[in-house]
Amino acid sequence: NRSPCTDYDMAYFHSYAHLGIHQEMIKDRVRTETYREAIMRHQDSIAGKVVVDVGCGTGILSIFCAQAGAKRVYAVDASDIALQANEVVKANNLSDVIIVLHGRVEDVEIDEEVDVIISEWMGYMLLYESMLGSVITARDRWLKPGGLIFPSSATLYMAPVTHTDRYSDSVDFWRNVYGIDMSAMLSLAKQCAFEEPSVETITGENVLTWPHVVKYLDSYTVTISELETVTSKFKFNSMMRAPLHGFAFWFDVEFNVPTIAPTSVIESHQVNGSLRKRRTNPSEALVLSTAPEDPPTHWQQTLIYFYDPIELEQDQVIEGLVTLTQSKENARFMNIHLEYTSGNRSYVKESVMR
Amino acid sequence: NRSPCTDYDMAYFHSYAHLGIHQEMIKDRVRTETYREAIMRHQDSIAGKVVVDVGCGTGILSIFCAQAGAKRVYAVDASDIALQANEVVKANNLSDVIIVLHGRVEDVEIDEEVDVIISEWMGYMLLYESMLGSVITARDRWLKPGGLIFPSSATLYMAPVTHTDRYSDSVDFWRNVYGIDMSAMLSLAKQCAFEEPSVETITGENVLTWPHVVKYLDSYTVTISELETVTSKFKFNSMMRAPLHGFAFWFDVEFNVPTIAPTSVIESHQVNGSLRKRRTNPSEALVLSTAPEDPPTHWQQTLIYFYDPIELEQDQVIEGLVTLTQSKENARFMNIHLEYTSGNRSYVKESVMR
Repeated sequence: NRSPCTDYDMAYFHSYAHLGIHQEMIKDRVRTETYREAIMRHQDSIAGKVVVDVGCGTGILSIFCAQAGAKRVYAVDASDIALQANEVVKANNLSDVIIVLHGRVEDVEIDEEVDVIISEWMGYMLLYESMLGSVITARDRWLKPGGLIFPSSATLYMAPVTHTDRYSDSVDFWRNVYGIDMSAMLSLAKQCAFEEPSVETITGENVLTWPHVVKYLDSYTVTISELETVTSKFKFNSMMRAPLHGFAFWFDVEFNVPTIAPTSVIESHQVNGSLRKRRTNPSEALVLSTAPEDPPTHWQQTLIYFYDPIELEQDQVIEGLVTLTQSKENARFMNIHLEYTSGNRSYVKESVMR
Repeated sequence: NRSPCTDYDMAYFHSYAHLGIHQEMIKDRVRTETYREAIMRHQDSIAGKVVVDVGCGTGILSIFCAQAGAKRVYAVDASDIALQANEVVKANNLSDVIIVLHGRVEDVEIDEEVDVIISEWMGYMLLYESMLGSVITARDRWLKPGGLIFPSSATLYMAPVTHTDRYSDSVDFWRNVYGIDMSAMLSLAKQCAFEEPSVETITGENVLTWPHVVKYLDSYTVTISELETVTSKFKFNSMMRAPLHGFAFWFDVEFNVPTIAPTSVIESHQVNGSLRKRRTNPSEALVLSTAPEDPPTHWQQTLIYFYDPIELEQDQVIEGLVTLTQSKENARFMNIHLEYTSGNRSYVKESVMR
């Protein structure tokens, strides 16, 4: 029943043994402070309870849970960073509360049911190198009926973007290089710059329409097979006249308690597959957002640029299909398949996030 | 006599097929404009002459030479970027002047002697992934007696640096992480941050003394065996009281014509192995400098940080030995061995630039 630990898994775990990556994540105040706020705001669901922290890294979320009064926290990480987390726990005299388990959630043993699962599992574009599979495994192995999962849900968005400066910088640059016409480079320049997804920070001004929900994931019901292929049809109406340079992807996650079902979110998704207005938040759930209009995070946004821009008129429709699949080459790679039509022309763009 | 083309060579050549790296180099105005200035200032040595451009990349230096009136320019590059350079040459109607040769200088054939060799061969820390070996091969295969090599010389410098902000950012960060004492991470943090050389931009204010010349290379006489191991003893007197965090390395190259021997430079090197004052430049040779006090370039500086700072008093002596060798693991990697003594304590630091 347990998936085997592959060479790719080992390389992935090894990459998290380097402290720099943890420092970058911890320094992302939007990320770390939203998690801390979620823990502290729901302290009554954590105090006196048993918690699992999936992919604990340095152990910072486990310590926040201990500070919130957790009875016991199992801090699980397959990377060697777990050894360091254990030293931090000891140095802070928290060994009677936090039990660091160095191994995969598939392999470690926890001899009791748990009340709470907390995990910062999100990757670039939500699903790239994400640990959601491990959260699902932890849930199915240990979570009590009625237990809490933080974050409680995650939503992946996409929207068409215009980004003339970025395009010019990579492409038009070659038209005049110290007075030399290097336009012969243009097709290679486009390929080099735009073949792969690009993780970069854009702003709300780059976004041409309200976003489309590519995938809504409920932490309580999501299954591993649901993550193997994610497909979504989209239809955008450009809100302005502008060159369309590609699509941006981003996500948010919510920290709800299970008694408040996120129905309002699901309903709004179903208005033509697109969000017609800013999502209202009747439950005042805490949201960690990586949207272009929100403060930047270390996740930034993920851009899929076209090789050539499409000149959009106001109200022009762009519709199509996006499919995200695990790469067969390496299960941690993600294939992004885009088909889109605009002004009677159809396009296909294949991109691999490595 | 020809060295074989290894897998490492192939990977190296392949890495230069991506346009992004060429764009970064071309956009470095200090680099590109100094080369153009050198070509234009010595136009009388280039007009009507035969030139080889070693590692031509996009062909920009070859085109500058054509603009300066070269009779013929052989633009050699083993990377696939040569195919693109050829397209640029054709599009600019320069095919009768510039002959693009796609291959290693060891392998391509040029059926005449050449008057000028030009090459932008310098790597990080001057010698890392440098193409100087290819320049030497081109010189020994094709250069006429009395011919010109640009750059005519190169000098690698080192100096002790203080950089408290950088040290704190990587190390002291862990003392207080959102109120949590993660000092248990300190030794791993030091290892992760300072085990490897770091390419970054510092300023003149980080530098504690005049620099020491690690190696002076005369393009006309340098041999490949001379590059296999570079060793230099150094002795610095700190000009101020400050924490010493490590050593910075940088380089400059000169564009001299061979009738002006760079004797003044050599003499000043011999004052105790250190430069006592800013180098005078009696020949007014053009210099491309990557020093901390000069405008930044894409080479930045290369820093070797210590795991712990040394508290220096004013006039305190730091002396030792630096040895740069090709890695046996991969000939394009560089081992940096540092031995240094200060205040009766001796230290050794090994670092590999990968």
